[in-house]
Amino acid sequence: MSGNTFGRLFRLTTFGESHGPALGGVIDGCPAGLPLTEEMIQQGLDKRRPGQGTPGSTARKEPDAVRLLSGVFEGVTTGTPIGFVIENKDQRSRDYSDIKDIFRPGHADFTYQAKYGVRDYRGGGRASARETAARVVGGEVARQLLARHGVLVSSYTKELGDIPAQCMDIPGAPSRPFYAPDDYVVDIWEDRVRLVHAEGDSVGGIVCVNAFGVPAGLGEPVFDKLDARLAYALMGVGAVKAVEIGEGIQAARNYGSKNNDAMTPEGFASNRAGGILGGISSGQMIVARCAVKPIPSVGKEQQTVNTSGEAVTVRIPGRHDVCAIPRINPVLEAMTLLTLADFWLLSGRGV
Amino acid sequence: MSGNTFGRLFRLTTFGESHGPALGGVIDGCPAGLPLTEEMIQQGLDKRRPGQGTPGSTARKEPDAVRLLSGVFEGVTTGTPIGFVIENKDQRSRDYSDIKDIFRPGHADFTYQAKYGVRDYRGGGRASARETAARVVGGEVARQLLARHGVLVSSYTKELGDIPAQCMDIPGAPSRPFYAPDDYVVDIWEDRVRLVHAEGDSVGGIVCVNAFGVPAGLGEPVFDKLDARLAYALMGVGAVKAVEIGEGIQAARNYGSKNNDAMTPEGFASNRAGGILGGISSGQMIVARCAVKPIPSVGKEQQTVNTSGEAVTVRIPGRHDVCAIPRINPVLEAMTLLTLADFWLLSGRGV
Amino acid sequence: MSGNTFGRLFRLTTFGESHGPALGGVIDGCPAGLPLTEEMIQQGLDKRRPGQGTPGSTARKEPDAVRLLSGVFEGVTTGTPIGFVIENKDQRSRDYSDIKDIFRPGHADFTYQAKYGVRDYRGGGRASARETAARVVGGEVARQLLARHGVLVSSYTKELGDIPAQCMDIPGAPSRPFYAPDDYVVDIWEDRVRLVHAEGDSVGGIVCVNAFGVPAGLGEPVFDKLDARLAYALMGVGAVKAVEIGEGIQAARNYGSKNNDAMTPEGFASNRAGGILGGISSGQMIVARCAVKPIPSVGKEQQTVNTSGEAVTVRIPGRHDVCAIPRINPVLEAMTLLTLADFWLLSGRGV
Amino acid sequence: MSGNTFGRLFRLTTFGESHGPALGGVIDGCPAGLPLTEEMIQQGLDKRRPGQGTPGSTARKEPDAVRLLSGVFEGVTTGTPIGFVIENKDQRSRDYSDIKDIFRPGHADFTYQAKYGVRDYRGGGRASARETAARVVGGEVARQLLARHGVLVSSYTKELGDIPAQCMDIPGAPSRPFYAPDDYVVDIWEDRVRLVHAEGDSVGGIVCVNAFGVPAGLGEPVFDKLDARLAYALMGVGAVKAVEIGEGIQAARNYGSKNNDAMTPEGFASNRAGGILGGISSGQMIVARCAVKPIPSVGKEQQTVNTSGEAVTVRIPGRHDVCAIPRINPVLEAMTLLTLADFWLLSGRGV
Repeated sequence: MSGNTFGRLFRLTTFGESHGPALGGVIDGCPAGLPLTEEMIQQGLDKRRPGQGTPGSTARKEPDAVRLLSGVFEGVTTGTPIGFVIENKDQRSRDYSDIKDIFRPGHADFTYQAKYGVRDYRGGGRASARETAARVVGGEVARQLLARHGVLVSSYTKELGDIPAQCMDIPGAPSRPFYAPDDYVVDIWEDRVRLVHAEGDSVGGIVCVNAFGVPAGLGEPVFDKLDARLAYALMGVGAVKAVEIGEGIQAARNYGSKNNDAMTPEGFASNRAGGILGGISSGQMIVARCAVKPIPSVGKEQQTVNTSGEAVTVRIPGRHDVCAIPRINPVLEAMTLLTLADFWLLSGRGV
Repeated sequence: MSGNTFGRLFRLTTFGESHGPALGGVIDGCPAGLPLTEEMIQQGLDKRRPGQGTPGSTARKEPDAVRLLSGVFEGVTTGTPIGFVIENKDQRSRDYSDIKDIFRPGHADFTYQAKYGVRDYRGGGRASARETAARVVGGEVARQLLARHGVLVSSYTKELGDIPAQCMDIPGAPSRPFYAPDDYVVDIWEDRVRLVHAEGDSVGGIVCVNAFGVPAGLGEPVFDKLDARLAYALMGVGAVKAVEIGEGIQAARNYGSKNNDAMTPEGFASNRAGGILGGISSGQMIVARCAVKPIPSVGKEQQTVNTSGEAVTVRIPGRHDVCAIPRINPVLEAMTLLTLADFWLLSGRGV
Repeated sequence: MSGNTFGRLFRLTTFGESHGPALGGVIDGCPAGLPLTEEMIQQGLDKRRPGQGTPGSTARKEPDAVRLLSGVFEGVTTGTPIGFVIENKDQRSRDYSDIKDIFRPGHADFTYQAKYGVRDYRGGGRASARETAARVVGGEVARQLLARHGVLVSSYTKELGDIPAQCMDIPGAPSRPFYAPDDYVVDIWEDRVRLVHAEGDSVGGIVCVNAFGVPAGLGEPVFDKLDARLAYALMGVGAVKAVEIGEGIQAARNYGSKNNDAMTPEGFASNRAGGILGGISSGQMIVARCAVKPIPSVGKEQQTVNTSGEAVTVRIPGRHDVCAIPRINPVLEAMTLLTLADFWLLSGRGV
Repeated sequence: MSGNTFGRLFRLTTFGESHGPALGGVIDGCPAGLPLTEEMIQQGLDKRRPGQGTPGSTARKEPDAVRLLSGVFEGVTTGTPIGFVIENKDQRSRDYSDIKDIFRPGHADFTYQAKYGVRDYRGGGRASARETAARVVGGEVARQLLARHGVLVSSYTKELGDIPAQCMDIPGAPSRPFYAPDDYVVDIWEDRVRLVHAEGDSVGGIVCVNAFGVPAGLGEPVFDKLDARLAYALMGVGAVKAVEIGEGIQAARNYGSKNNDAMTPEGFASNRAGGILGGISSGQMIVARCAVKPIPSVGKEQQTVNTSGEAVTVRIPGRHDVCAIPRINPVLEAMTLLTLADFWLLSGRGV
């Protein structure tokens, strides 16, 4: 209820602050008999690690090494909960007194204070994007489960810093910088990020997440539609401000006769629905898109107030990324994987 | 788990098919001491009733009269569950043999069959938009609770049939056709709907839902962010294909220094965040926008398959709306109201 | 959360007060493809109906006719929620002013008032045993699901009015008055009930619920043990004050070497565990016993206070049973059926 | 759903096997502003540590030192989840090949194998009572929350090895061996345990848990009655085979006129109900009793089968307790504390 558990049958509960001793969590409901090692998870975790080769990536050095504490025996899951921790190694003993009493614009400082009355101001505390490391651990376990059944999830960046990609080489995206779907746009995006970094500013973008091999029939009608749960999963990632399924906003501008996907004996003739009809998977590729806002921590001077309500200005030097992309991509994949693994188990399909 | 319950503390469970004996539901968790009558609910329910003065509105005649069966005593809620039913009066004994074995494009026919193996094909069964009547009942009870505390929810139509409104007179919208925010656009939208109706086609649009008076501090961090739950609530309405919060997709194209809302001693200087920071309400107006796809039932001939997998064509005569707007507006308000009432109770605030 | 929903995958939500317009509920999660009619449910419901041939049975005349409103199409469940209502026919317009302002001893009057500030005092409102009719409806649907897989649940009365049964003819019990497991004790129990009735008093007893054919492997470890969920289900029935599994209290007095059930190649050599080990079914008969307190409504004069805190005396004439047995038996069976159906679905077993 | 999370608003999720790297868990929903240190928790944890001065207590040496990883800042809870671990220090590298392929009588070996197909056989894995250490951590946090509001929970041992205590000095019990409520019985119980130990056998007993200072009005009607949730909480502890509330089984043998607690202007005249009426607290002391079965690990030779279904005999040498009492007492207190803290928050009462 307090918002730190995701899922109904495949459940991830997480904990941890940016500058506390450790992050971690519990994956409950993972079926027995699934091969699982720390290495399998680490591989996914490394993709959201600081310093992913993009110019503006944070200088914080975190190995983000996951340690499994339970639920795995002789290399295979036992059906009991999988506890894990990631120690926070790089908690620099920097002085936070400059931001301790200030509400940083675009951050959760003000709202956490309003809700809790107290907050861990060091690096954003629980509201830091650092919590997403635990989501990735859960997502990688879900990935192992789904992969056995031919369900694959991947993502690519459709737009960054207001510059859309031109080609859409989806399979090649994860191996390019920024998860870019074309070679050409990489340099342009790098230039944009470098420029924005130099200005002490930040940019956002649009990430598309796809799921392949999802059988028809996953999802629940009415409130727990597959797209509703996906929207919930993806909008719950800090920087996301919009979620589209299939045609998304464009669907509002199509006529019905054009927006419907015709069916033929060979299958659907198009996929404007994004692989979901009436909240249930249709067997086509599932398509979700997320608008990622620019990182709120910028070096430029901003107007704000302190905890006494007085006007102050703030510049955030820090070790922050210029753009949440591409580090957010594995997080968005993780949330999609967790959602699908959960529906997989709800459908009565096993390990 | 089967997706027919919404909410954690303020909970709505619904049931009912388009052509079954009745719709209904249970509202559990509504605090004791709230004045409540059938009339209060009926007022809201009437707004989603067929035939709302728009040209293409369905000819089905349903009084949609709600009957409260429990939870209210001497005009006041008792804290026990509020059961209610809405009888289906107009279940015309029409012959459904023409669509019984056909998967209508854009509908849930195929996916329900894939999931359940059986389906009630009469008028879409559970997948019919008719189920939303029960959502509105729940929403109206939530509205009574929230109104006592100064929280108001309303909606307006931002775009219809690819034509955006020009002015944004939000308070006046509910009293205009289509929940239009300007007088001028009403005739244009009516013309568009009439034209599309004549062509045997349908249109969609964009609806904006606003919540006023929400105090700072509602919401939960990480997975159950207020925006995440709103996205879940709104995307769970059948026709919705995208949900945006605040700037939404545009946020992905802003620089950080522009996208952040500066703070001043008088409050926030802007509201690009849509009233939510870090998943918690900031005290500003909450802004969510939904892309509503065109009604999939169109009179034009469409290609599809029957349950034997053979190619067939289908025209859907029926008594269907041309556009889900404005009948969807009270439903989107209801989902927002239910979400806020739920967070209200979670925050420990009472009746 | 407000306590009117039971189950995780097979879920029953109920509503209704003793003297409101109707009782009812929603069964969500029942798999598609299960044959189901009102008659199947009514058969079970009739067993808890007032006037079951025992001398002290309430004189209230209620047909308790269930009406299914959704989720069933052409005699088979569709996988969508099953809504149902039972109209309250016999709401005698009697004057409740005599108990309106009094807290009846042994009843929930005082605690409801403390919790809610208001209460429906007519016949106990929501706290009346009348709510259990809706439990039985849910239980009968669960019974249909489980019976297809050879899982059967029945109950018998082990003790009534302090008089234990001597024989244990379990299969024959449901067809005898009081669900008595031996012929001989029936007359003795009837005499006791008649005597107590004449004194204006009431009695309790002990009911044993058994489940046959439950396969090994149902249940979850740690908090959601099968016995823990059974205890929760059974203790949630108003009159139950103790729940025992297998040997129950006697287990505390055995030595370990005696209490353990030895295993042989032919199976377990005994069943002191009551069919559950480590919270998971062992494949043996499941055995749960419930202590049922005497009906708190007695004709004898009792000391109590009114809502102003003043000392008063009260006699409860009413139309009340002298003993909750045997009308509670189908309710205890229902809770056991609901618990098992829920674990059945959680285990990934289908319809 | 997989049974490793307890609670609705105050939620404990646990993980860990007897011989894995560590136990641990997450406490979610604890309000902000509660003073909390590792020392406060350790104090409670020490009470269930091996070697509590009773003759038969296990020789396993575990410091059971809790480490808090999140959710506490500057000595006060922040409202974010409290992650914790307890490292398993004493995982002796003993050879488990003797029990690896054997189903120990009275243990969960057989049922885990039936459910999961695989199991961690080292020391019982997840089914070991060692998991209860994580429950105690959660319970101690709940204790801090409740103590601020004057709610206190304690336990005493009513019976051990078939020998009941005579006096009932409840306040003094926690400081005596076995949580004995009288001085005299301690030696007798010690003799009994020593004797049973010498015989290679084990004993059980009865533990009573009381809650003082619970205000009237906690609990929910129908399925989630306070007594129903308590029964669920307590029966979920491995060794518990029966749960009684108030008079418990004896209530079944009383007449209604005797079993009801009369009310007077000064309050209730007795407390046979155990502080709960209609599932809601009455403001009196809450009384629950648990029957604790004897430890199933006995040195005596027992008949069983191996995983191939062949008859074998087994003696369990191990480092096991002879009696779960008194180490189970803090666990039963913890489950009561967790249940009450959860209802406390559900009632809208805060920190």
